[in-house]
Amino acid sequence: MTGTLFGIGLGPGDPGLITRRAATLIRMAPVIAYPAFAGEESFARGIAADLIPQGAREIAIDIPMKAARAPAQAAYDRGATEIANALSAGDDVACLCEGDPFLYGSFMYLHARLANRFRIEVVPGVTSLTACAAAAGVPLAARNGQLTVLPGTLPADELANRMHDADFVAFLKVGKNLPKLRTLMKRLGLLERAIYVERATLAEERVCPLSDAPDVAPYFSMILVNRHRDPWL
Amino acid sequence: MTGTLFGIGLGPGDPGLITRRAATLIRMAPVIAYPAFAGEESFARGIAADLIPQGAREIAIDIPMKAARAPAQAAYDRGATEIANALSAGDDVACLCEGDPFLYGSFMYLHARLANRFRIEVVPGVTSLTACAAAAGVPLAARNGQLTVLPGTLPADELANRMHDADFVAFLKVGKNLPKLRTLMKRLGLLERAIYVERATLAEERVCPLSDAPDVAPYFSMILVNRHRDPWL
Repeated sequence: MTGTLFGIGLGPGDPGLITRRAATLIRMAPVIAYPAFAGEESFARGIAADLIPQGAREIAIDIPMKAARAPAQAAYDRGATEIANALSAGDDVACLCEGDPFLYGSFMYLHARLANRFRIEVVPGVTSLTACAAAAGVPLAARNGQLTVLPGTLPADELANRMHDADFVAFLKVGKNLPKLRTLMKRLGLLERAIYVERATLAEERVCPLSDAPDVAPYFSMILVNRHRDPWL
Repeated sequence: MTGTLFGIGLGPGDPGLITRRAATLIRMAPVIAYPAFAGEESFARGIAADLIPQGAREIAIDIPMKAARAPAQAAYDRGATEIANALSAGDDVACLCEGDPFLYGSFMYLHARLANRFRIEVVPGVTSLTACAAAAGVPLAARNGQLTVLPGTLPADELANRMHDADFVAFLKVGKNLPKLRTLMKRLGLLERAIYVERATLAEERVCPLSDAPDVAPYFSMILVNRHRDPWL
């Protein structure tokens, strides 16, 4: 009997936002896997630290962050092989994922490598999208409105084109792209409608109008824009 | 001392997907509020049923479903008044919300009516978006891809226009709009890339290619489309 791989969404950072099912699966797991980016401590492991059983075997998958694709692919290859060995030996593996495994998550690269050979269950998690909206006290999307989610890494003109006439827009991966995004919002007449959220649900959480945001944002930051004209809101 | 209103996301239906913080807040709440649509039992209350304390006071907000806006607005007005009375008397109120309170959630109408007078905390929940992606075993969004979320209630031409060149598209509120959406996907050459998901995380969950989906879908159904050409996926 081979084991099952669980891809477990842990939410945006507050351990309270871990789901009950995720908590149960982690507490029972003989093997725990997680990504660690660019030699830093694993953020995912930190969220779930109080749940990891004594004596569980841990598989840390070191992902080079700024590298070209080939080294990252090689890292996922190695991680998938190590997980496959545990599954083949009959152990279940809980793979810890910050946010949700399938929303811009690195788990999809393990899934792509293992789904044809092993049973995989994905446990959805609270996303940073709704966590940032909750922190800001504004709806993420409403009624018959369109929500568009865009990585802030894209060029400004492509972002303007892709925003099209979406009623609600969320920019992820803000980081050092903040000045570009602020200039774009100004150009589109949307600066007054843009909210900046940093490290949602963590102790250092910060919410402010985009016009007051710092020039250099941390990786875990987001911009929410509401163009919806619903008189209810 | 007035009480605090908690807008609590419960996730898409499986009680296991309630977060630990949501469970704690519901267990401690002296007053529990929830929407009930069109005279039916409250789906939100059903998800959290095992957590509601004995003796908690319950405020059911009856929302007429197919009505014009005015009767629904009046229902939210009445619900907000009842909640305000409890808060003014010093009681905390836990408002139960299916999915996430701020992603197409009705909680925003209570928030709009009460936020200027009372302390409100929104607890984000697992959304049906990531729950459906998890059930289907496909990423909801990846890498530098654009995710666009659209209500299936909009006219076909408007949907085609609003999809624009999004890499990932999710259609919510499918229900009786399924034939229209299937015809649209065929017209755009996307039928092979569209997955239908019904009642994700519930016992009756169903996942199939959109081409095999029934003509009449339940309210809790979704269509996921992946146009992304990332060679990793």
